[in-house]
Amino acid sequence: MRKLKKGYIQIYTGNGKGKTTAAIGQVVRAAGFGLKSYLACFMKEFPYSEFESLKKFEGLIKVESFGKDDFVYRREYPKDEELQAIRLGLDKSKDAMIKEKYDLIVLDEICVCHYFKIFSVDEIIDFIKLKPENTELILTGRYCPQELFEYADLITEMKEIKHYYSQGVNARRGIES
Amino acid sequence: MRKLKKGYIQIYTGNGKGKTTAAIGQVVRAAGFGLKSYLACFMKEFPYSEFESLKKFEGLIKVESFGKDDFVYRREYPKDEELQAIRLGLDKSKDAMIKEKYDLIVLDEICVCHYFKIFSVDEIIDFIKLKPENTELILTGRYCPQELFEYADLITEMKEIKHYYSQGVNARRGIES
Repeated sequence: MRKLKKGYIQIYTGNGKGKTTAAIGQVVRAAGFGLKSYLACFMKEFPYSEFESLKKFEGLIKVESFGKDDFVYRREYPKDEELQAIRLGLDKSKDAMIKEKYDLIVLDEICVCHYFKIFSVDEIIDFIKLKPENTELILTGRYCPQELFEYADLITEMKEIKHYYSQGVNARRGIES
Repeated sequence: MRKLKKGYIQIYTGNGKGKTTAAIGQVVRAAGFGLKSYLACFMKEFPYSEFESLKKFEGLIKVESFGKDDFVYRREYPKDEELQAIRLGLDKSKDAMIKEKYDLIVLDEICVCHYFKIFSVDEIIDFIKLKPENTELILTGRYCPQELFEYADLITEMKEIKHYYSQGVNARRGIES
């Protein structure tokens, strides 16, 4: 089994399209080299088309989904059970990183969870500090808190220059979900 | 077979990591919904780990690689045969779009080809104008010429905030290639 010699911490943030898709591309590339990835998707309900595709990589890519984003549309703080469903994702990601020793761990939309006060910056930093030397860690989501920047080795801001949403185009199956 | 009702033009440019990986993520997501993608990789030599992974999507994702980037390192204009190898990619992409009717066409690093004067802006615009209504077109690469912006429906600038390359980290198999 191939391993990374050294793993880094990557952040994809910003208001433009391409953060989650870059993370998906990254786990797919890693699988092509034989690295094992764990992808924790926060606040995203099935079905997203990528979940269907990534099933092809059984044994190399494991995807789990934690909680929904209904509370955002209701404009209220998540109910206890919703909160627990989302918060479970960080515990499971810890296990994937420490016990199951995945090479690449993705916390997709973790920055959005912080924005909605579901995880504190300190909880995320505590998680980062557990990262083994040869594990790559990717955090995504808009509104990445500045305090995380010093822990990251790579940060890309996906900056929206133009978006078809502003033309009134809705999210499309196969493209956005 | 599923089809898009309407296809748009997306551009991923900028100096940060995540442009090609976002395009890979996009074709993988599209495949999960049953859409067919053609991915033309310009100036990228095999093996990239993603090429290995994408073989799993036979019949849904077709990847072809056109030319190398050796001339960049030699600091000279590409030789005729190198130029032809790269230029062939646009003809093959035209066929994929018009004759083979793929739902999603990715021209990966086409903007870099323009930067190195391998394709003119007009050649790329002529290509764009051929796009059928229900085809999605994605162009990637740094140095996207401003003239293409008006043709795009979505533009994300992947902006480097921090990169481990500046810490002296080299490209790693499974992560960058």
